[in-house]
Amino acid sequence: MTAIRHALTVKREDDFAQWYQEVVSAADMAEESGVRGCMVIKPWGFGIWERMQALMDRRIKAAGVQNAYFPLFIPLSNFVREAEHVEGFAKEMAVVTHHRLIADGKGGLMPDPEAQLEEPLIVRPTSETIIGDAMSRWIQSWRDLPLMLNQWANVVRWEMRTRMFLRTSEFLWQEGHTAHETREDAMAETLRALEMYRAFAEDDAAIPVIVGEKPANERFPGAVATFSIEAMMQDGKALQAGTSHYLGTSFADAASIRFQDREGGQQLCHTTSWGVSTRMVGAMIMTHGDDDGLRVPPALAPFQVVILPMLRENEGDAALLAYCDELHAQLLAQSAFGEPLRVLLDKKPGKAAAKRWDWVRKGAPLIVEVGPRDMENGKVAVLRRDRLWNDAAKPDFAFTLRDEFAGQASDLLADVQQALYNEARERREANIVTGIDSLEALKAFFAEDKRYPGWAEVQWARPEGEGLDKVVEQLKALKLTFRNVPLDAAPADGTCLFTGQPAVERIYVARAY
Amino acid sequence: MTAIRHALTVKREDDFAQWYQEVVSAADMAEESGVRGCMVIKPWGFGIWERMQALMDRRIKAAGVQNAYFPLFIPLSNFVREAEHVEGFAKEMAVVTHHRLIADGKGGLMPDPEAQLEEPLIVRPTSETIIGDAMSRWIQSWRDLPLMLNQWANVVRWEMRTRMFLRTSEFLWQEGHTAHETREDAMAETLRALEMYRAFAEDDAAIPVIVGEKPANERFPGAVATFSIEAMMQDGKALQAGTSHYLGTSFADAASIRFQDREGGQQLCHTTSWGVSTRMVGAMIMTHGDDDGLRVPPALAPFQVVILPMLRENEGDAALLAYCDELHAQLLAQSAFGEPLRVLLDKKPGKAAAKRWDWVRKGAPLIVEVGPRDMENGKVAVLRRDRLWNDAAKPDFAFTLRDEFAGQASDLLADVQQALYNEARERREANIVTGIDSLEALKAFFAEDKRYPGWAEVQWARPEGEGLDKVVEQLKALKLTFRNVPLDAAPADGTCLFTGQPAVERIYVARAY
Repeated sequence: MTAIRHALTVKREDDFAQWYQEVVSAADMAEESGVRGCMVIKPWGFGIWERMQALMDRRIKAAGVQNAYFPLFIPLSNFVREAEHVEGFAKEMAVVTHHRLIADGKGGLMPDPEAQLEEPLIVRPTSETIIGDAMSRWIQSWRDLPLMLNQWANVVRWEMRTRMFLRTSEFLWQEGHTAHETREDAMAETLRALEMYRAFAEDDAAIPVIVGEKPANERFPGAVATFSIEAMMQDGKALQAGTSHYLGTSFADAASIRFQDREGGQQLCHTTSWGVSTRMVGAMIMTHGDDDGLRVPPALAPFQVVILPMLRENEGDAALLAYCDELHAQLLAQSAFGEPLRVLLDKKPGKAAAKRWDWVRKGAPLIVEVGPRDMENGKVAVLRRDRLWNDAAKPDFAFTLRDEFAGQASDLLADVQQALYNEARERREANIVTGIDSLEALKAFFAEDKRYPGWAEVQWARPEGEGLDKVVEQLKALKLTFRNVPLDAAPADGTCLFTGQPAVERIYVARAY
Repeated sequence: MTAIRHALTVKREDDFAQWYQEVVSAADMAEESGVRGCMVIKPWGFGIWERMQALMDRRIKAAGVQNAYFPLFIPLSNFVREAEHVEGFAKEMAVVTHHRLIADGKGGLMPDPEAQLEEPLIVRPTSETIIGDAMSRWIQSWRDLPLMLNQWANVVRWEMRTRMFLRTSEFLWQEGHTAHETREDAMAETLRALEMYRAFAEDDAAIPVIVGEKPANERFPGAVATFSIEAMMQDGKALQAGTSHYLGTSFADAASIRFQDREGGQQLCHTTSWGVSTRMVGAMIMTHGDDDGLRVPPALAPFQVVILPMLRENEGDAALLAYCDELHAQLLAQSAFGEPLRVLLDKKPGKAAAKRWDWVRKGAPLIVEVGPRDMENGKVAVLRRDRLWNDAAKPDFAFTLRDEFAGQASDLLADVQQALYNEARERREANIVTGIDSLEALKAFFAEDKRYPGWAEVQWARPEGEGLDKVVEQLKALKLTFRNVPLDAAPADGTCLFTGQPAVERIYVARAY
């Protein structure tokens, strides 16, 4: 077999941002659409998102949350009512003003001035307000609670600077919105969603995350508490991979979500919301990609095993294909992660080495090449994508008996999944510094000339109001942000880095996406 | 058990349109959203659409078609280029003209005049043009063919008169778009998609359909041939439940989808497109609903079995719930239609009779009531929704041993599925008239005072051009349309109803949604 490498042109250590763009393109994940800020998600990229959806949706349904679908358009007046949200994030939005096109008399088309909407419609940047409206209609009594809804949808937030999957004007997400009788119930649901995100990130996406609460300055507007899962990318930056909010009764108050309680009185509901988006695909790329392209965790891979027959376009091909068909059938009868294996027998015309590299760049977990000699020996050549190029001289194929491989494939995939997780976890552990006890030391750790410094776990006194604002400004000057206060952190035992007062908790500080 | 009926207030035979609206509401399927022309799809309605999606998606993937995702917005200039499509259906569209809101100085918000888009964006009414663009980039050589793409998406076509699921400004659908080397390949794919729709409609949705080709006047603009599946609703009207188009090379020509052929020359691709939408939910309601509400075919039901413990809010409830929990677990271990059973143990507070009627109106296929006496006898009371009220005096519960029922549930569900299909099929057969050989006879069959006349299968000479236009006008005057020319029809053996010439084929004529 040829050992020519067709790796990426940019290495992670040289230019991580450029490397990211190259992976997205080389792995055939997505491309620019020609529509400002909107991407085309290509089949391999969308297949990974579909897997994320399927695995998350199963967890959502298992919790008794029901999916529903709300309109794409939201009347302008809803945003006036929720002015607080507008301040927070919703100024840059796509505004629909007309409902008809007519000829412009110059061979083109234009919005018909006769068909201007009385009230402009906003393309949803979130469905918060419109779901709140529905909840206020659907909830009458405590018997209707909890009401737990989720929506899978496209949303639009006009963005000037976009990066595929990480920040696009249109993106895909799920948004959970739930209403409860009591604070306790709502907080329990907030934490359930958070734990669901942790399990999804770690078990399905093989991305280790820190589970914690955001400091006050990073809370969702109107929330009483905001929690997040935070993942470390290979450039040491943090990526918030999911958030869960306990909104108290303020959102219910704004949307009039009231119920008759068990004693006959009127009460406001306690609500929560939580969401995960196609950003998660970006997190997956930046966690698992290497200098040859993407590596997809088997639980998320649209195809977990790709069989590549080394076709010669001669009369030997028929027997080779029959040999591969049998392997294909053997594998389809196996299952991994509780589902039947997803296996592609790639019969497309083309040179075997080029096709192999396509799948290496796309990151299929197991690539199985079968040439005429392998067939004669009853064997196959198995390439584990996670371990590729430990020896740079040649791909580390394992030549295995075909029937043996078929029986081992599930175990191999579980092993790949675990190996990717372990690698990311070890990298994260190696790149978190503790014990920083002064702003100077923090500044040094995140010095400009250090490429990928990682995260600092610091202790602080959790100042509030202006005290917090001042600290946030100090961090901002260093291009740093608070990530979260880990739920499972050891108690504070030092002094606050910022105020010199006794620390009350530990919090992560990092550059972030 | 109480035998009080909580049926609908309107019967099908009295006012079908009103009955439809009542079912949508009483079965908790959807509601008006307050946004013009857009509905909220409630959990039960959306759960049915999710089932449709899952079952169709499996068929789509099995055919080697790949899902992808394209932008919500389409630049205005794309529509100018595709002026033919604009003429056809796309004038009424949502037009985005601004990307920011600002305060209007009067306590409200308004589109920011400074943030007007240079080129307006259209909310996709279909993704035809934008997917064509992508195909022209992705296809270089015959090796890239076939390229078979599908998208699940929301689309918007501004509608003045809307009806839930049947015609809404925003709706959900899948659109398949494929490109091929030859006419033969493209036509084979067109017919594969058509057969997929037939199998989905009949096997999954229990809706019998006529599979056929549309006459020239009903073709998709630019298509060489348009095929459809047509279903008869209970008011005798036809509903086109899915279409599949062979587009020849005209669409490829407009979008520059070219490939290098095996001899090195440049060729235009042959393309197809095919789609099914949330209209299918409307078709399901109008095929299977009865005067008590909806009846959902088990393959589509979000919950196939609903267990209703008759709780008394006393100390006996714990034992009853334990008894039901055991049944729940027994049922979850069974499967139907190749998937684990979907079972709800409904523990919500409320009166048993009221809850039963909720599920009757929603159309859960099997409703299982369990009272303290049933528990003592090791039994359950099983209500088959498809057969409800054959004896109007009382619900036809079958009292069955619990453990026996658990073992029979899968078979019962298969039986319900088949029974719903048979009922619809028999009704359709009884409401198709053949042998009509004059316009007068056609007029009489569809006389104004006949409520639900059904369909006429007529013979015609398939006139073209002006001849066809004249015939279509004649039908229009009678509020009739051509449905399709069935693929499996007997050869023509009479004279053309419209022209008096020898007929060349049979075609269905009906009122339609």
